[in-house]
Amino acid sequence: MTESVTLADVRAAAARLEGYARRTPVMTSRRLDARVGAEVFLKCEHLQHIGAFKFRGAFNAISQLDAAERARGVVAYSSGNHAQAVARVSQMLGVRATIVMPQDAPAMKIAATRGYGATVITYDPHRESREAIAQRVAGEQGAVLIPPFDHPHVIAGQGTAALELIEDVGPLDMLFVCVGGGGLISGCAIAAKGLSPDCEVIGIEPEVADDATRSFYTRTLQTVEHPPTIADGTRTASLGALTFPLVLEYVDGMRTVSEAHIKHAVRYGLTVLKQVIEPSGALSLAGVLNTPVRGRVGVIVSGGNLDMALLRDILAEDLTAD
Amino acid sequence: MTESVTLADVRAAAARLEGYARRTPVMTSRRLDARVGAEVFLKCEHLQHIGAFKFRGAFNAISQLDAAERARGVVAYSSGNHAQAVARVSQMLGVRATIVMPQDAPAMKIAATRGYGATVITYDPHRESREAIAQRVAGEQGAVLIPPFDHPHVIAGQGTAALELIEDVGPLDMLFVCVGGGGLISGCAIAAKGLSPDCEVIGIEPEVADDATRSFYTRTLQTVEHPPTIADGTRTASLGALTFPLVLEYVDGMRTVSEAHIKHAVRYGLTVLKQVIEPSGALSLAGVLNTPVRGRVGVIVSGGNLDMALLRDILAEDLTAD
Repeated sequence: MTESVTLADVRAAAARLEGYARRTPVMTSRRLDARVGAEVFLKCEHLQHIGAFKFRGAFNAISQLDAAERARGVVAYSSGNHAQAVARVSQMLGVRATIVMPQDAPAMKIAATRGYGATVITYDPHRESREAIAQRVAGEQGAVLIPPFDHPHVIAGQGTAALELIEDVGPLDMLFVCVGGGGLISGCAIAAKGLSPDCEVIGIEPEVADDATRSFYTRTLQTVEHPPTIADGTRTASLGALTFPLVLEYVDGMRTVSEAHIKHAVRYGLTVLKQVIEPSGALSLAGVLNTPVRGRVGVIVSGGNLDMALLRDILAEDLTAD
Repeated sequence: MTESVTLADVRAAAARLEGYARRTPVMTSRRLDARVGAEVFLKCEHLQHIGAFKFRGAFNAISQLDAAERARGVVAYSSGNHAQAVARVSQMLGVRATIVMPQDAPAMKIAATRGYGATVITYDPHRESREAIAQRVAGEQGAVLIPPFDHPHVIAGQGTAALELIEDVGPLDMLFVCVGGGGLISGCAIAAKGLSPDCEVIGIEPEVADDATRSFYTRTLQTVEHPPTIADGTRTASLGALTFPLVLEYVDGMRTVSEAHIKHAVRYGLTVLKQVIEPSGALSLAGVLNTPVRGRVGVIVSGGNLDMALLRDILAEDLTAD
């Protein structure tokens, strides 16, 4: 159907990222394998630059700007990992970056984004629209807007995570991917179906933010506004104009996990895997731990920027789970 | 001076461990390098089986027992990672293991040790001596006692961590190693001096458990009983009869870090490296973060069995450190 992004695009993205992105390790765990009755390969995108896969898409987009565009700079709106990704990539490539962030974003995240040399513009989320501010900046400076997921270069960049995983471990029977706006799963599904055609690609969403799951099964775009999930990276209201058709075409199934499952997966990461995984990044692991799996199972662990205050809350809730 | 353990012994241990121990990854971090002004290579022994380097020494010792010894089984006393290491190795090799643990050891640790198929004998640490109980078990069953550090096979096994690190990344200018009873640093120093003769080997100890530091600089064995450090793996009273002379011969310097430094290193592991490192295992990292370093620096990150209640306490203390 749609040919907006292809395996060739993901391969081209991988070539661009070489020497800039980390080729993140693939981790295995006998305890995890024994627990779920399958052979699990964890692609460690929490060890990517800025602690999340978002670096890949941002790099693939910004590195394709021409000299005139680079000279005018880039702009992005995000309170999360996309902000840091655009800031970090821009710093690497010598491009001016402006990031629009809500004024109540964690001070640490604003500081981290500024630390990568970006100009941060804060706004009052109750009075202003970040899109409008970003458009104004883009208009004034001629800066190029780098969207968080609904852009072919961003999607192709995110797909390199699955490309590397399958290159490193061989064909898979299943691939679990977290779903927010659908950029990661679109790119990864394109790569997986291209390199390992029998691989079943499964998207995982929070139960309380199941817009993509309902969109997938009804084939009609569904929306969830401000879902009350701790997986903040999946609070996006819906899939995008580009990602929705790609998800319909390349993804085999969608599953949801509860907030308790997500917290458990974060704890499992800490205690069994010794890895710090943020809730949005642990969705795929929660899916593997709580839904049926078989054979050789890839898991995109997508981010590790776990807020320490949130971690404290998770630890306070239940000290016996494993 | 002493030739109780040699590079050849470490190499022989590495051959025995092949296919049984994990060849743990070496991690790097641009942020860490920028902070300390050196090129740091973290050897991830928190990702070893049972979550600590102790697997190496236990395997090298138990795998060298003959058929008659194996038939009689092994015994160890430990409330920590050595217990799990002896239990896990015994399970792998089909050897019966008895572990003597204090009755107030964390239920999780007792359960983990039993989970590896070992018989756990608990005792009242206020009324009984673990050595006496272990000796009794050894006498009754003819079981072989596997000591936690003061044994040439254990020392040679631990040295394989540094051997692998230097094989993987090349010669080092410095190597930081945590010091408890001295088994890890003895083996690692022998390997480092053999493979990378100019490498300065530095032991790191808690300030409040500085027996090895004082022993090293006075060349007279010093003891600290029940030191009040959160680095529980270093609460050993002193270096051993074998490890003390090896430390004197092969180690270049000893440094201490405060309890605050240790907690900070655990937090740094979580937030920057996205790794779960227990306090004893983070000593070497604390040393790199808080004392002068230069050039290419190896760091043995020795364990990841961080108690979640302790982690909660660390997070409660200070939410702003980075």
